[in-house]
Amino acid sequence: MTNQLDIVFGALADPTRRAVVEQLTLGPAAVSALHDGHDMALPTFLKHLKVLEESGLVSSTKKGRVRTVHIEAAPLRVMDDWLKRQKDMWEGRLDRLARLAEALNEEDST
Amino acid sequence: MTNQLDIVFGALADPTRRAVVEQLTLGPAAVSALHDGHDMALPTFLKHLKVLEESGLVSSTKKGRVRTVHIEAAPLRVMDDWLKRQKDMWEGRLDRLARLAEALNEEDST
Repeated sequence: MTNQLDIVFGALADPTRRAVVEQLTLGPAAVSALHDGHDMALPTFLKHLKVLEESGLVSSTKKGRVRTVHIEAAPLRVMDDWLKRQKDMWEGRLDRLARLAEALNEEDST
Repeated sequence: MTNQLDIVFGALADPTRRAVVEQLTLGPAAVSALHDGHDMALPTFLKHLKVLEESGLVSSTKKGRVRTVHIEAAPLRVMDDWLKRQKDMWEGRLDRLARLAEALNEEDST
């Protein structure tokens, strides 16, 4: 039953991983530079990067000894689409309720 | 370090819980009606509802023996705001890169 949304929502349910995504929206960054901003051991930080990479939210390329991490927009878009569908359904329902209330009001006033 | 986004993203990293949210966008529903759509034991399903309720994504009211579950829009909005910020940053960066590429092109052609 595990699907992409499970993995992407799960990947973002952590402040370190969200901070990495936030930082990468500004541009690609080397692993060492990303790690600098976080007060944790490198192996722990690398585990977070691995979760992000497995979720598809980031990808990385290695040149010499430097691994550079990039954000990938597609999983954010999948999540955004899901949220938008919920919002549309929810707002559609509120619109229907408003019309119903209006109709009842008109009925009352006749 | 656990904050609302951790909890809300975590709550939605599960297909059963997302399905409940999807169903509730159509309107409030009794726990028994919500459970009907899911092929799992009631205690397991109630655990999922508890996670959703603790995240603030749903609330419930009890009248007699019937507990009715409602969606709460605020946590979805918090998540939507976070995603929108990332998208704005990301698209702002792409715009800057496009302008840079244009400037370099113009420089080349002079």
